[in-house]
Amino acid sequence: MDALILAAGDGTRMGSSRPKILLTINGITLLEHHINALNALGIKNIYIVTGYKHQDIERFIKEKGYRNVFTVYNPDWKKGNAYSVIAGEKFLKRPFLLVMGDHYYQLSPLRPLVRIRADFMMVVDSNPRYVDVDEATKVRFEKGRVVEIGKGLKEFDAVDTGIFLLSPSIFPFIKNSIKDGAETWNDVKRLWIAKNPLPVYDINGALWYDVDTPEDFENLKRIIKEREIIKARDGIISKTLNRRISSWLSQHLVKTRITPNQITLISFVIALASAVFFGLGRRWSSIMGGLLIQISSIVDGCDGEIARLKGLSSAYGAWLDSVLDRWADAAVITGMAWGTYHQFGWIIWPLAMIALAGSLSVSYTETRYEALFRKPLNRSKEIPAKRDVRLFLFMLGGIFNLIPHAFLIVSTLSFAEVLRRLLLSTAEE
Amino acid sequence: MDALILAAGDGTRMGSSRPKILLTINGITLLEHHINALNALGIKNIYIVTGYKHQDIERFIKEKGYRNVFTVYNPDWKKGNAYSVIAGEKFLKRPFLLVMGDHYYQLSPLRPLVRIRADFMMVVDSNPRYVDVDEATKVRFEKGRVVEIGKGLKEFDAVDTGIFLLSPSIFPFIKNSIKDGAETWNDVKRLWIAKNPLPVYDINGALWYDVDTPEDFENLKRIIKEREIIKARDGIISKTLNRRISSWLSQHLVKTRITPNQITLISFVIALASAVFFGLGRRWSSIMGGLLIQISSIVDGCDGEIARLKGLSSAYGAWLDSVLDRWADAAVITGMAWGTYHQFGWIIWPLAMIALAGSLSVSYTETRYEALFRKPLNRSKEIPAKRDVRLFLFMLGGIFNLIPHAFLIVSTLSFAEVLRRLLLSTAEE
Repeated sequence: MDALILAAGDGTRMGSSRPKILLTINGITLLEHHINALNALGIKNIYIVTGYKHQDIERFIKEKGYRNVFTVYNPDWKKGNAYSVIAGEKFLKRPFLLVMGDHYYQLSPLRPLVRIRADFMMVVDSNPRYVDVDEATKVRFEKGRVVEIGKGLKEFDAVDTGIFLLSPSIFPFIKNSIKDGAETWNDVKRLWIAKNPLPVYDINGALWYDVDTPEDFENLKRIIKEREIIKARDGIISKTLNRRISSWLSQHLVKTRITPNQITLISFVIALASAVFFGLGRRWSSIMGGLLIQISSIVDGCDGEIARLKGLSSAYGAWLDSVLDRWADAAVITGMAWGTYHQFGWIIWPLAMIALAGSLSVSYTETRYEALFRKPLNRSKEIPAKRDVRLFLFMLGGIFNLIPHAFLIVSTLSFAEVLRRLLLSTAEE
Repeated sequence: MDALILAAGDGTRMGSSRPKILLTINGITLLEHHINALNALGIKNIYIVTGYKHQDIERFIKEKGYRNVFTVYNPDWKKGNAYSVIAGEKFLKRPFLLVMGDHYYQLSPLRPLVRIRADFMMVVDSNPRYVDVDEATKVRFEKGRVVEIGKGLKEFDAVDTGIFLLSPSIFPFIKNSIKDGAETWNDVKRLWIAKNPLPVYDINGALWYDVDTPEDFENLKRIIKEREIIKARDGIISKTLNRRISSWLSQHLVKTRITPNQITLISFVIALASAVFFGLGRRWSSIMGGLLIQISSIVDGCDGEIARLKGLSSAYGAWLDSVLDRWADAAVITGMAWGTYHQFGWIIWPLAMIALAGSLSVSYTETRYEALFRKPLNRSKEIPAKRDVRLFLFMLGGIFNLIPHAFLIVSTLSFAEVLRRLLLSTAEE
């Protein structure tokens, strides 16, 4: 599948002398957000239709050195965006996604589209949560069929997101529509539904946003930050302590060339150092171990934040982070037991084993639950046993020489939370 | 979404006096397979169009006491199956799946269909792996648009699976088609594509099968068994030892009323007993512990087998099994260390911790990898470290009093395998 991004308009309402798609959100341009998201979907070639200040976009693409991104100049860009779609005809020989360049999208809900072939399919949102619905193009169904499309609809079932799945077979229809007087892409849609059924795909509440004015840009930045940095999944220690420090750190690190995966590795190395200090078994080294594991826990928040701010979130990054976190957990717990079994006797070892089994069970059951049930864990009445809480308790154990107590508390919280998840799913069943 | 199952035909080629949909595969009827699969997709109401021997189907549904399954008698069932679709009109007020009753389907690849609305969408298979393609209805695209449908096509891009997503808006078209001479559903499709675009959804190699003759039935049984019992994911001990015993056991258990989840619990209790015997630390109890953990490992194969044979596989069953397996792993390793630290000294404890961390990492990284990358782990050059192998090594350790060795080998294999997965993903990245 290929993609066609419409970016020819002059975006008068932005009051900027740059093409809208080159304006930045959290440090990277809207265009890069598009390219990162389309690449993550597995799109082969990306064609950008340019018009207004097209040299700026061409120069930008060239500087970035993308291999699968091409610009297509539309000399008729002032006439209406139906002409911009036609400009892609000679390049698009496969099914393709048509995307509005002045929208911001999180495209992961579109993954199943690769299985679909259609002359013309519209991606809609039956549950628009972010966009200004008054300004949006609306869609009304009757008996499951799209019967009306327009900004002014009083009654509607969904909103047009500006994303379309098309086949090259659509081009003759668009050219005929232009002959019949269509200028905008909305005109083409209306002519289509007058004669043909238009299937739709519903992204049902996903994040997308139409950027027309400077206020829209500010709103969008705020939405992304709220939605991405303050993750709903954060535990109590993350929310009240770690995120405050890590998001401050990330604001600075985002300006450097450091990559999210490098931060993941740094956090892992700090955790290993903590395990070694714990293992030395002295009073001072145990305090050092405690402080280091909490520092590692804070730094561990930055990798994801920077990835999200830069639109660079990747499955590989999340995977590397997960695996190293589990190894770090095991190393620290082993170090804590190793350093204290002379003081507390052999009983520290079974306590450590239970704490380790509990810690890993919390991580395991979360990912397993979500993979199997295809929905996030219900977090109401959640027992605080996530990594932020566990490592914080280990820090306290190290500083106050209460390692057996830390193990006991972590074990109790962890197994209680896993049991809650098991009972929750049984109740749902 | 609702579903309409066409089951009115007399299936002459089966040579059976029962409606085809009531014939059994691995102990349950084709109809129950349909109902289980549609329910798992989240379908609300299921309507079955009956004709030939309709009382048999009505009686069967009544006996089973389904709450969301209804029969609709089509008096015109001899005329052609377009009439059977029309028979559903007065019940279907929502988008619905149309499904051929004499096909066997694994429907999970259809999950994204709930996001789609279309007057008429066809589910195709561009990579038919099981069905007899000569007998199948074929589909040809041109520039992404369906242009031909028929059994006799010489060139084609995909095969019609007999599943369709429809909206109630389709009924007037079907009735007009019948007026124009259409009798079969294939006639309706051809009239549709002559005038309208027909979007398709590709299940790309999923298991589905068209059952026309007694030979087809036998083939299908064989395919399901090969595909389901001998899971590609099985480790070396599973393949060579455990599956042979567990599949023999399952063949008998499938005839009883025991449920897959009950077997999961039995396997867990046996593992806990094994942990207790290991923990006693005597020579004889250690041998008992070893034998019991291997028995638990074998029994653990039966829950999934019976679920698959009965078409009762569920996310909840897989989840319960996963959580209890991890707890069993932790209990057994702790029991082994507890029972032998007097003999081998404190060093057994860190060895046990590493074996535990390794064991849980193997399970964790598999589910995490597949959740993040949305594809199965590459198993070429896999290092044998799955649960079947680990528990088998623990059995040997228990019987021959070589528990530290068992820990060391399990740790080495487990961490080597997790490292392989990490390097694999890095190479792919």
